[in-house]
Order: sequence, then C-alpha cells, then structure tokens
Amino acid sequence: MNRKFQGRFFWRITVLCLCVMASAFSVYAQDPLPSWKEGKTKQQILSFVKEVATSSSLHFVPPGARIATFDNDGTLWSEQPAYFQLLFAMDRVKSLAAQHPEWKDQMPFKAVLEHDLAALAASGEKGLLQLVMASHAGMTTVEFEKIVKDWLATAQHPRFKRPYTDLVYQPMLELLHYLRANGFKTFIVSGGGIEFMRPWVEQVYGIPPEQVVGSSIKTKFEVRDETPVIVRLPEIDFIDDKAGKPVAIHKFIGRRPIAAFGNSDGDLQMLQWTAAGKGIRFMGIVRHTDDDREWAYDRKSPIGHLDKALQEGLSRGWTIVDMKKDWKVIYPFELKN
Amino acid sequence: MNRKFQGRFFWRITVLCLCVMASAFSVYAQDPLPSWKEGKTKQQILSFVKEVATSSSLHFVPPGARIATFDNDGTLWSEQPAYFQLLFAMDRVKSLAAQHPEWKDQMPFKAVLEHDLAALAASGEKGLLQLVMASHAGMTTVEFEKIVKDWLATAQHPRFKRPYTDLVYQPMLELLHYLRANGFKTFIVSGGGIEFMRPWVEQVYGIPPEQVVGSSIKTKFEVRDETPVIVRLPEIDFIDDKAGKPVAIHKFIGRRPIAAFGNSDGDLQMLQWTAAGKGIRFMGIVRHTDDDREWAYDRKSPIGHLDKALQEGLSRGWTIVDMKKDWKVIYPFELKN
Repeated sequence: MNRKFQGRFFWRITVLCLCVMASAFSVYAQDPLPSWKEGKTKQQILSFVKEVATSSSLHFVPPGARIATFDNDGTLWSEQPAYFQLLFAMDRVKSLAAQHPEWKDQMPFKAVLEHDLAALAASGEKGLLQLVMASHAGMTTVEFEKIVKDWLATAQHPRFKRPYTDLVYQPMLELLHYLRANGFKTFIVSGGGIEFMRPWVEQVYGIPPEQVVGSSIKTKFEVRDETPVIVRLPEIDFIDDKAGKPVAIHKFIGRRPIAAFGNSDGDLQMLQWTAAGKGIRFMGIVRHTDDDREWAYDRKSPIGHLDKALQEGLSRGWTIVDMKKDWKVIYPFELKN
Repeated sequence: MNRKFQGRFFWRITVLCLCVMASAFSVYAQDPLPSWKEGKTKQQILSFVKEVATSSSLHFVPPGARIATFDNDGTLWSEQPAYFQLLFAMDRVKSLAAQHPEWKDQMPFKAVLEHDLAALAASGEKGLLQLVMASHAGMTTVEFEKIVKDWLATAQHPRFKRPYTDLVYQPMLELLHYLRANGFKTFIVSGGGIEFMRPWVEQVYGIPPEQVVGSSIKTKFEVRDETPVIVRLPEIDFIDDKAGKPVAIHKFIGRRPIAAFGNSDGDLQMLQWTAAGKGIRFMGIVRHTDDDREWAYDRKSPIGHLDKALQEGLSRGWTIVDMKKDWKVIYPFELKN
C-alpha cells in the first residue's frame, strides 16, 4: 500500500464517519410528530416520552413496562355519523336480506333495510344486539375475517367517499410510531369487536393482532369433516367498555399501562386505572373540536359521549388534545393533496 | 500522522475485523440446544426452525407470524405429585385456617388441613372449585400477585426440597430462547391460572405477562377511597383446557400458532388447531418417561393424562419428545452440580 493510497483511504474513512454522524444528527433533529402543531400538548407528549425512555432519568421505565393503550373509535379513527362497525353490520344485513325475506317486516332489520336510523335507534340495546348477532355470528372465524376484509375493500364512508381505513388520524399514527420507536408496546383497547379490528389494524396502525383488546362474542372449537374450525356463536362474551376496560387490560395484558388515550366517557376507567399506577403516567383525551375537517361533539353526543372524563381530565391535569388547535392535518390523505 | 502510525492503524482495524468475524462464526457454530441429545427429535426442531426462518426457504414465515404456544404444567415445568397451583391453594388454605375455624369440619378444607389427599380427590370438581375460590378470590389483583410471589419465595417442592420455579425443564428453556432468537414470539397457553403464572414467568421463561394465556376467574373494577382497584371474584371466567385452548388462542393471540407444545390430552385441540394451518407446522408432545430424574406417567395418570393426543401424535408424525432419551439434563440445577 503506497502513501498516496493510504492518504486516500484515511480521507475516505473520515468522510464516511462524518456522513454517519451527520445523518445521526439529522434523524435526531427530525420532528417525530410533524402533524402536531407546536404548543403545550405536543410538549407534554415529547417530555413524557423523554422522561420514561432516558436511562438516566428519575422516571425511567424499562422498555418491557412501557405499555401504551389506545381506544380505537374516535381516538385512532373517526366514529361519525355512527360507529363504523355498526355501518358494517347494516351493510351485512342488507347483503343477507335475500336469504331472510322475514326481515322486511321485522325490527330492527326492517329499519336497516329502509335505512331508517331513527327507527333503528328506537329499537334500543335489544335491537342492536339482534343486529350484531345476525351480522357477526354463525360463521367460522376464518370466514368472518374474509367478510370484514371484503367490506373494507369496497365500502365507502358516506361523507368522505373513501374507504373507512382512510379515516384514521395522521397525528395518532405518528404518535403510535413515535412511542414504538421509543420502546413502547402499543395496544388497542376498544369497545369495538376484537375480530372486527384484527384483520386490518396491523397494516393501518402497525399494531399486531395479539395487541388488540376489545369486545367479543363467544366462540366454539369443533372438528368438521376432520377440519378443526372455530365457530362464532350468537352470544356476548365480554363488553370492553367503561369499567370493562381496566378489567380487560388486566386480563389480556396483565400489566398496567403507563400511557393511555381515549376520547369518551367509555375510556374514563381505563384512564383512572392508568393514572393510579406508581411513577409518571400519561393520560390523553382526544377532543373532537373540528367540524370543518372532522366533527365537533362531546356532552350532547350519544356517540363518543364525553362529559365526566373531560371534567376529571381537566381537573387532574390530563392532556386534552384539541383536534382543531393541536393538529395540522387530520387524515393521511390530506398530506397527499 | 506518520507512516508508522498509519501502518499500526491499518493492522489494528484488520485484527478487529477478524475478531468480529471469528466471534460471529463461533456464535453460529455454537449448539443452540446443548441439553438436547443428538438425534431425530433435535433434528426435527432444528430443521423446522431453519425452514421457517430462512428467507430463501419455500416454507419461510415472516417474523410476526412465527407464533409458538406452550402448555405450562408438564411441558415447561413439572406437575407431580400434583399441579403446583393446587399445592399453592392448599398452602393458602392452611395459612388462612386460623381465620376460618369452621373449616376444621368442612370439606374440602378438612381434607386439606389434615393433608388427606385421597379425601380431597374424593371431594371432586365441586371440592376443587371451593378450594380455588377460597384461596384465589376475594382480594385485589395487586394483593394476589404478592401472595403468589411470597409463596414461591418460601415454598419447597416435597421431593426436590427446592423452590417450585427450580423445577422447570432446562431443554425447554433452551428451546424457548432458541425460538425467540429466530424471530418467534413465545406464548404460554395453560390450563393453570393466568394470574398464578404472570408474577414469575417473565423471570423464569423470558415470557412477558401479555404473552400468557390461561384459566381465569372473573374480576371487577371499583374505586375504593378514590383508589381504583381490580377485585378477584369467586366465579370462574374461563377454563383454558382441551377445546378451550384453541378458543383462547384465537381470543388472546388472534392468529394461529405455527408451533405448539403440550404434554397431555388437554393439549390435543391446541395441537390439532396448529396442525390445521397452511404451510409447515411443528407439533410437539413432551412425554414423561424418566422416573429417576423426573416422573414417568401417561395413560393411567389423572395428572397430565396422555392417551388420545399420543395416539394422534404418533399416527400423524408429530414430534414426541422422550424425556429420558432426548434430554441430557432435566432441571437447570443439574448443570450447577
């Protein structure tokens, strides 16, 4: 190796090192939450994550214990004009109607077939349950997964004329990614059906099926013609809402979250359970304040009803995310325009 | 920088690179399953893992889908002379007896206090249920976790005079580690209580609480003096055994395992469900054949009863692990002698 070559080798190594350092700095300097406006909310998130993820911090939490739970409807994706799973159930009833001529005269199916939302609401909890059982039970788990995927591939949201999975919140996607990049394990804890969510949440949120907690109906294992199947039964197993959320968190996850995000009174107990743990915690409430870009609703809405949780959140200093003020964009498709 | 220094620099880099390469090769060459004897069983494990984890393989499975489920009692740790959780329940009843003078004359408590295992067995399922409820319910989840940890820290196995957590199988610890090193996510799917396992399985098996599936009793969230608690209720929620195992796998994990290990007829449906998936699968049965180092039992034992699963396993070519022939050591403490 001659001197000239050694000199080149030395400079190349030096340039390479400088490039690596520069790119490391640039990653560090990049904003991990670009769709969040600068301000108090964003600062609260950034400083919480820094506190728990820095090994020299007083509030350091080991990676395995960095559990973050997220409600789904109204927290990660929209829930208006009705929970998307209800719209799925209605579409499913319509597609099955030919096999059920009796539904024409039978509530709540009559209301669904006539698209009479007021009559459907009037059929109450009993009507809703009948609708869920007719649309969600009776098939194998493998068949149901395909039904959900097929629906999502073709159905369109009535206002935005886009697939429902387009109506996820870009700032929350960034938050999920940011938490995971900092050693968090992210879970969904939703009042919605587990099996309605599992077919698509991994692709959309980066959350694998085993990190989805939700409401469920009973199922049964059986061997049909030598093939084992799991059949969905028309009976409620568990409702993952209100006081059911901490119960389900304990059952499915087995440890208390250090961060939890919700948007309605259905999330209050999950937030309380999270807040009651030792060490610093992050409780976030997504508040729907943007009627132009999304919807604005809280105390008066039956969907995503937010009253007690807001009151408790305000009085205890939880982070209230104001969609209108805190988010530069709502949906990912806005970025592509 | 003078020439001599540059020369040294070059050689140091070269030596460093060679060291890194050598250590990489040595890790690669190291036996990942040193407690497994060379032979068919070990080869089946090694070639299955190679098949699913090699990206150029026809049977490649992406890391996220590499789900492996393990029964616990008799598969990962011993279960004789009785399930360790039953011995825990008996010890707990004894420690609570002073507060329950009526137990002296009441079955099944009388049998426990007199250590009359035959009478306890004669009290049947009803007696067992009463025992579980008296020992496992009525406290908060935080209190129960402490009770389990305290018991494990002090209780000793009657034959080995060691903590129960010493009686885990060294070859299975190596297998769990080897699977995880190859991108698998390892789960426990046990007939035992979820909350009896979660306090110790992470330390002992490297399996975090959220990857434990098991039997459970109902719980209830409530706020006591402004502190949220989850209380354990004296009511069965779910029995994770036999046909319950695939149901629980579907509910908790939401995808089908590509590998499953059990040791009794209680694991048959989990193995069938695993086998029925597309692509190559691994079904393993740990067979208790070593009366000297552990125990030998199968068809005639009420604990770890193995009959139908063995028959099906043999006829379908599942891997039957013969503890006596396939394992060099049974327990980790043998390595330290």
